[in-house]
Amino acid sequence: MQLLKERILKDGKLINSQILKVDSFLNQQMDIGLFEKMAEEFWRLFGDCGVNKILTIEASGIGVACLTGQKFKCPVVFAKKNRSLNRSENVYTSKVHSFTHNKTYDITVSKEYLHPNDRVLIIDDFLANGAALEGLVSLVRDAGAYLVGAGIVIEKAFQPGGEKIRSQGIRVESLARIASMSIEDGIKFV
Amino acid sequence: MQLLKERILKDGKLINSQILKVDSFLNQQMDIGLFEKMAEEFWRLFGDCGVNKILTIEASGIGVACLTGQKFKCPVVFAKKNRSLNRSENVYTSKVHSFTHNKTYDITVSKEYLHPNDRVLIIDDFLANGAALEGLVSLVRDAGAYLVGAGIVIEKAFQPGGEKIRSQGIRVESLARIASMSIEDGIKFV
Repeated sequence: MQLLKERILKDGKLINSQILKVDSFLNQQMDIGLFEKMAEEFWRLFGDCGVNKILTIEASGIGVACLTGQKFKCPVVFAKKNRSLNRSENVYTSKVHSFTHNKTYDITVSKEYLHPNDRVLIIDDFLANGAALEGLVSLVRDAGAYLVGAGIVIEKAFQPGGEKIRSQGIRVESLARIASMSIEDGIKFV
Repeated sequence: MQLLKERILKDGKLINSQILKVDSFLNQQMDIGLFEKMAEEFWRLFGDCGVNKILTIEASGIGVACLTGQKFKCPVVFAKKNRSLNRSENVYTSKVHSFTHNKTYDITVSKEYLHPNDRVLIIDDFLANGAALEGLVSLVRDAGAYLVGAGIVIEKAFQPGGEKIRSQGIRVESLARIASMSIEDGIKFV
């Protein structure tokens, strides 16, 4: 998606060869006009797949997922990263290791909101090592729902997540795929 | 907002006289069509106030805030509840005590995304004791920005938060205000 790539080049901040900050339009400040365009692109890619539910994970996936849900006219469910006191134990759960925060946490979604007859599109902001996406796929499988695929905003294609998930036969569509990045040479897209 | 009140009565689950679960349309599964209606209502209430930025807090405020940002055609910024390794220390911060989770945490927002010339509308899903909202107000004050007011989805008007914030001269508009709730008598709105 050309508009997104241009935005990454313009406003993304390369901290080092592993970390790209896009807080100014995606991860903390959210450019809703851009999100609308991304949602349109996800609709173009997955609009004919009978999606009736979108699954994402808190926190920074939620915004893009909600705008996408608006296009698909379906509910959006987000997996939670921590168990909360006022939530039922009746949940699907999966373990996820965050390389960013260097810790392992549980992600959960209530069994009430994922069903065997659901056709689920996963939406998330980043795909790098694939840990979060694998966790979300696992929740969909546990529910016995049909996984249509995953729509990702930015994929670090030089990290193993995308290959790992695609090799399972899962359709993964990323709006911007980064082939390499470094302070010296900048960001190169696939 | 009549539509929201009806939905709370239909799908809200009263756990006890303090805890109302609205996970099926607001806090975990998000009804985007309903969110659009809520965003329209926030636009009706605050549309003439020159809002150029919406501030919310992760995670369950983000969805409503993004749909509202779409109406206001402005960026949405969310405060984070934990410091992350790949974020600058250049942040505004405030302490918030969560009664739900019975712990105190820092909320932060990068100084890059709140400025003295901003006219900020705060959006959040719940107002009860007012701890989160007070924290968000504090971030806006620290930035020297103008606080237009706060738009809340559900206010537990029998808890002290709303009164506490309004007594500071801050405009708070809640789409549904609950006067009382109990297993015996159900939910009564103001």
